[in-house]
Amino acid sequence: MPTTRTVLLTGFQPFGGEQVNPSWLAVSALHGARIAGHRVVARELPVAFGTSLKVLRAALKETQPSLAICVGQAGGRSQLSLERVAINVDDARIPDNAGQQPIDAPVVADGPAAYFSTLPIKAMREALRGAGFPVEVSQTAGTYVCNHVFYGLMHALRRQRAVRAGFIHIPYSPAQASMHAGTPSVAVETVTEALRLAVQVALKTRTDARLAAGAEH
Amino acid sequence: MPTTRTVLLTGFQPFGGEQVNPSWLAVSALHGARIAGHRVVARELPVAFGTSLKVLRAALKETQPSLAICVGQAGGRSQLSLERVAINVDDARIPDNAGQQPIDAPVVADGPAAYFSTLPIKAMREALRGAGFPVEVSQTAGTYVCNHVFYGLMHALRRQRAVRAGFIHIPYSPAQASMHAGTPSVAVETVTEALRLAVQVALKTRTDARLAAGAEH
Amino acid sequence: MPTTRTVLLTGFQPFGGEQVNPSWLAVSALHGARIAGHRVVARELPVAFGTSLKVLRAALKETQPSLAICVGQAGGRSQLSLERVAINVDDARIPDNAGQQPIDAPVVADGPAAYFSTLPIKAMREALRGAGFPVEVSQTAGTYVCNHVFYGLMHALRRQRAVRAGFIHIPYSPAQASMHAGTPSVAVETVTEALRLAVQVALKTRTDARLAAGAEH
Amino acid sequence: MPTTRTVLLTGFQPFGGEQVNPSWLAVSALHGARIAGHRVVARELPVAFGTSLKVLRAALKETQPSLAICVGQAGGRSQLSLERVAINVDDARIPDNAGQQPIDAPVVADGPAAYFSTLPIKAMREALRGAGFPVEVSQTAGTYVCNHVFYGLMHALRRQRAVRAGFIHIPYSPAQASMHAGTPSVAVETVTEALRLAVQVALKTRTDARLAAGAEH
Repeated sequence: MPTTRTVLLTGFQPFGGEQVNPSWLAVSALHGARIAGHRVVARELPVAFGTSLKVLRAALKETQPSLAICVGQAGGRSQLSLERVAINVDDARIPDNAGQQPIDAPVVADGPAAYFSTLPIKAMREALRGAGFPVEVSQTAGTYVCNHVFYGLMHALRRQRAVRAGFIHIPYSPAQASMHAGTPSVAVETVTEALRLAVQVALKTRTDARLAAGAEH
Repeated sequence: MPTTRTVLLTGFQPFGGEQVNPSWLAVSALHGARIAGHRVVARELPVAFGTSLKVLRAALKETQPSLAICVGQAGGRSQLSLERVAINVDDARIPDNAGQQPIDAPVVADGPAAYFSTLPIKAMREALRGAGFPVEVSQTAGTYVCNHVFYGLMHALRRQRAVRAGFIHIPYSPAQASMHAGTPSVAVETVTEALRLAVQVALKTRTDARLAAGAEH
Repeated sequence: MPTTRTVLLTGFQPFGGEQVNPSWLAVSALHGARIAGHRVVARELPVAFGTSLKVLRAALKETQPSLAICVGQAGGRSQLSLERVAINVDDARIPDNAGQQPIDAPVVADGPAAYFSTLPIKAMREALRGAGFPVEVSQTAGTYVCNHVFYGLMHALRRQRAVRAGFIHIPYSPAQASMHAGTPSVAVETVTEALRLAVQVALKTRTDARLAAGAEH
Repeated sequence: MPTTRTVLLTGFQPFGGEQVNPSWLAVSALHGARIAGHRVVARELPVAFGTSLKVLRAALKETQPSLAICVGQAGGRSQLSLERVAINVDDARIPDNAGQQPIDAPVVADGPAAYFSTLPIKAMREALRGAGFPVEVSQTAGTYVCNHVFYGLMHALRRQRAVRAGFIHIPYSPAQASMHAGTPSVAVETVTEALRLAVQVALKTRTDARLAAGAEH
């Protein structure tokens, strides 16, 4: 067990023809940072079903984090999304970086249908909005590698209730958006500072705030 | 047990200041219809946490359907949405018609985190698109009364694996959209015909099609 | 000069890989109709810079209409759009059906920078909304063949102030939208009935209603 | 006449219930900057029909700029928008900061229907995209105070063909977007650097690039 407590942040490699993945740019900028008495360790995951979870599980084992947040790119979304739920299905519209394209396969055979984030997503949303970051709660992390990693993360930690974990989606960077007409973006520096605050709130909040953040559909 | 096999379709009462709910307009037009040897029974549900499920469970008990599809309005969506998954949470942005506004409460205490639709949603999407209806698979039914009913439906039928069930969201009607600048709509008659075909496909399909219908986020 | 007064409606041929153009489907359904003492003549225009205006000018000369409304497909828009203004520029993102792709060329050399619609677009919007049709005022008709035809129409009629004229954009049909995930649609029959009412209002309204229908940007 | 050549940039005061206007935050950060041998003067305009143009005309007279770019907030847009055309109409959906709400009134009585930007908007778009800024060409600046100022700017300079002028719309800042669920944003610092480059390109480009940047509708 490490003498200093650790926060594990992961980002992804680029995919879908992009040159960069802003999730890795943002979390790698926090590697080594101290937040609320914890040391941040950042790791990059491959955009590949299966392999991504092997790398993630090795990182969890090695770092034994108090808090683990996986971060992924959501091209087309406007705001940082605090994901509420991971579902036990892989359904890939496009192949992953290893050429795999599972359709309606479970992430974990015989796993539960879903896991909820154990992050205090309502308190995080309020704190981030209060600090001027564009953020919302999301009811779906999709059915691609991001949801796969989110589900695998929660499954790996299902018996360690003291370790909070969850997933945050982020928009394109401005440079990416410049290649996709009409798409929104958030500067990587803004994402990095938002994540720093998100980690802080997740570490310091005992009971999540009771705030509506739902959707009619 | 009825001598003729039955399909149960439900729609909702109006909510959120609307004068009508196109889900009820569309399913009530199919009440009494014969589809693939089954008789359609249409029922209207209140937009109220709790009560909606009491009415639904009574209808299930009375009609003993071979197939049950709940339909709800998704104002702002562009296409009919075949919902993939119901999650075990109520998080209401606005109060329901009975004035209740649950936040982060389970639909069923100690129920599983989610239930997947048992409809052949991929085969349904293909058949409907082939017939010219605008339809897609959706990864979230929200966290309001629609998701509540969808979850409650699947929970009620969890031991009756032979009875297929699921949820379909539909856009505003044109008349509703005329009151909400810039919002999409689908004519109620178009929805009715799409639902007729959806029921037919659900009754006739044994094994769902293996077609990607996922989302990266 | 015809003994019965005439309304000219035009639609377009399919373009951009579509099999149909709902503008022609909708206006051709009104060919021969009697509306407010006028006879409707519907004509189909090619999706081609230059040629489209030749066909339009010939139709204007032949039919000598009291009212002329050109209608075009706006794939991706949610509601019928009453266009406010045509601008004197062709800037084609994709080639037209004849392979032409003008960039920053004027529609009419030495023509004015723009023409405003002479339809009573505010009164039309109110009447259509009142009848339950999804409709809005639009501040741009784009820079492709639709704007080209709209500008050419207003230029052709610039000295005939008694002849009202303008342009209406319509969404994809449901069948088209079924091929474009997530896009809105309006049934062709709904468009046809909306256009029938639009013509009636345009013929019967002397002074347009004073109603805000602007945009901050 | 100033011995150093000047670039005039304007931003707006807050409106519509916002606490800040990112257009002023972004342009004021460039006040005094030297770009391509020119000195930048930044001025803040009131969000008021009429008064805004008085302040603008006084600033033009005082600074005698070689280049004038007015910048305004377009809440809801995802990217910086290089506006193509200003139209001669005020149609206010909401009152301005002085309580005025003109409907279908001309900006300049007997003025032309529209003015085109004289900025090299295609070359600017390419340079900004190449530098990683999210930017697009827009075919409408709306019908509110932004379009009013844009039209008034081009009208004031209509006989000074050597002075290039135009309008750029910018998205909400991240802090603003945090108050409007689901809306896109661009960091003010990103906007400032994008405007610095835009000014440079506008000063250095003789003939605009021949690049498609149109819209089908």
